[in-house]
Amino acid sequence: MDIKIVKNSNPKVKPDQNNLGFGNYFTDHMFIMDYTKGIGWHDPRVAPYGPLELDPSAMVFHYAQETFEGLKAYKAVDGSIQLFRVRDNLKRLNISNDRVCIPQIDEKMMFEAIKTLIEVDKDWIPSAPGTSLYVRPFVIATDPYLGVRPAGTYKFMVILSPVGAYYKEGLNPTKIYVEDKYVRAVPGGIGFAKTGGNYAASLKAQVEANEKGYSQVLWLDGKERKYIEEVGTSNAFFKIEGKVYTAPLEGSILSGITRDSAIRLMKDWGYEVIEQRMTIQELKDLYEEGKLEEAFATGTAAVISPIGTLGWNGEDMVINESRIGALSQKLYDAITSIQYGKDEDKFDWVTKI
Amino acid sequence: MDIKIVKNSNPKVKPDQNNLGFGNYFTDHMFIMDYTKGIGWHDPRVAPYGPLELDPSAMVFHYAQETFEGLKAYKAVDGSIQLFRVRDNLKRLNISNDRVCIPQIDEKMMFEAIKTLIEVDKDWIPSAPGTSLYVRPFVIATDPYLGVRPAGTYKFMVILSPVGAYYKEGLNPTKIYVEDKYVRAVPGGIGFAKTGGNYAASLKAQVEANEKGYSQVLWLDGKERKYIEEVGTSNAFFKIEGKVYTAPLEGSILSGITRDSAIRLMKDWGYEVIEQRMTIQELKDLYEEGKLEEAFATGTAAVISPIGTLGWNGEDMVINESRIGALSQKLYDAITSIQYGKDEDKFDWVTKI
Repeated sequence: MDIKIVKNSNPKVKPDQNNLGFGNYFTDHMFIMDYTKGIGWHDPRVAPYGPLELDPSAMVFHYAQETFEGLKAYKAVDGSIQLFRVRDNLKRLNISNDRVCIPQIDEKMMFEAIKTLIEVDKDWIPSAPGTSLYVRPFVIATDPYLGVRPAGTYKFMVILSPVGAYYKEGLNPTKIYVEDKYVRAVPGGIGFAKTGGNYAASLKAQVEANEKGYSQVLWLDGKERKYIEEVGTSNAFFKIEGKVYTAPLEGSILSGITRDSAIRLMKDWGYEVIEQRMTIQELKDLYEEGKLEEAFATGTAAVISPIGTLGWNGEDMVINESRIGALSQKLYDAITSIQYGKDEDKFDWVTKI
Repeated sequence: MDIKIVKNSNPKVKPDQNNLGFGNYFTDHMFIMDYTKGIGWHDPRVAPYGPLELDPSAMVFHYAQETFEGLKAYKAVDGSIQLFRVRDNLKRLNISNDRVCIPQIDEKMMFEAIKTLIEVDKDWIPSAPGTSLYVRPFVIATDPYLGVRPAGTYKFMVILSPVGAYYKEGLNPTKIYVEDKYVRAVPGGIGFAKTGGNYAASLKAQVEANEKGYSQVLWLDGKERKYIEEVGTSNAFFKIEGKVYTAPLEGSILSGITRDSAIRLMKDWGYEVIEQRMTIQELKDLYEEGKLEEAFATGTAAVISPIGTLGWNGEDMVINESRIGALSQKLYDAITSIQYGKDEDKFDWVTKI
């Protein structure tokens, strides 16, 4: 793939590495590639970061035919740049694309796009502890047409954002509200895909949980409204009498890459990890019996987010005295050590660029 | 509201009125109004129709925080311009906005926006039989930010498109596939809102139905996968032994304005209209017993779309010998007669502008 590079002649001042937050700042360049029906993907290029010009009738504005991914590039301790599980993210982007009828994109081509863009903007990768360069590949439908049908033109883009930690609280245990009014997804829908509609659907529950003093929601299944699914945009895990439980991938929840990393590490450490449906009532009963030892959420942005409190039915379950659990901490340390190149990459998760 | 108007100095050549199709052409102007948290909606303006400039990180591209409406302006037989049920559309836009955490917009302000824009582009309203000016108000979240939260900045826009009939087949009965694999929505989700995610979620089912030789799908409920919900983006009606059945509004289907118009007209004509859940098996049984007399879908774009064939479980139900039913035709004629000012507006549905 021949990627044309047009350098930004007016680079920005880089933000303070200790005050990045998440998704606030963008680098000097972006990657763009166009799709035209009958031609395929064409014109891969790196261009100065700047506004997109789209017709007001572009289908993405009306019918949300859009997908995205999120992964991170790290400044490793040896000074090299490394991506974490990039192949898995790109594979998942194509799974999402398939669900909303966006044409497949060659995964090698996407990798070249990310690699080239990061090389151009490598001075933007922060090195302060806990920081990284968030990589956001995404696809949008651009046809200027108002009928409901898959578009014939798309843009695949990659933008980069230097980030600190996703949750302001850092690794502090979060307060999570068990959502009993709104539904995120059901099997047969789009819940397993990283596509805008799932996120738009989640906002109101999040706002109402915030108003009640919780930072996020725990989603229950949309059919029976009792099985535990995800926490916000992360996967949820529960340590019960030494064993670890998480919801199975049955079409309504996202196949999280940090979820998979956590499962593989825990199995490697000898934990029994059980992917099995569990009702919120079962969890509550186990909590009452003193058997719920830890709870945490996994995601690319926050890596591991310990759950300190679960609010359900007007009562709060306070888990592990709202302290970070030993397993949560061990997982966070293990994953981030691999990500920053402090530990051996025994699962072949890291790609040096 | 003081709407600033900047005229397009380079107007387009208008398309052939007999070959408009749906949503292909746009007029010379558009309406835009911005929202900024802490300030509210501001700077209402009519501007030359042209591309939007948005940051690639704009939230609408990633999290589909977007809503829309669709209504039509008609050149009435007396030469005046009239809108059909515009107040209901604007009310519904705010219901959709609420569901995806977009700030409410004053309905009078939206009406002024539409009225002003149509007045500026009034020469674009086609007058050939069956044509109209489709009005598309929409809202998009524009924050350049990658975290999942409601945006703090939005654009409310209105664009106009001169249109012919939505379905190429016109009032010809359609072939509809009963969808048993994909799900559109469940109660607690976003199914009742006109927001992009519902449409993105529907594309794959539509494509697969097309491949099987059907023009659209009939959605079943997402929980039990047996109750009849909608047809594509329209509401579904079934005439059975003289009575008319349609799915009730229970959160997963859109509260169609044409649906409501059809119900009110049929009741006015003495039909018993029953909003009640019905399984696809019940419908099949009634069909086998020769009791299913007519089926049709209602929507703004197509008004009334007779259903000639329903494919389910590998078998086709051919309804009313795949001819247009008397009730479907009567409804189409009655609604369009009001829309074009040929008939008395006894329900106060029409707004002259």
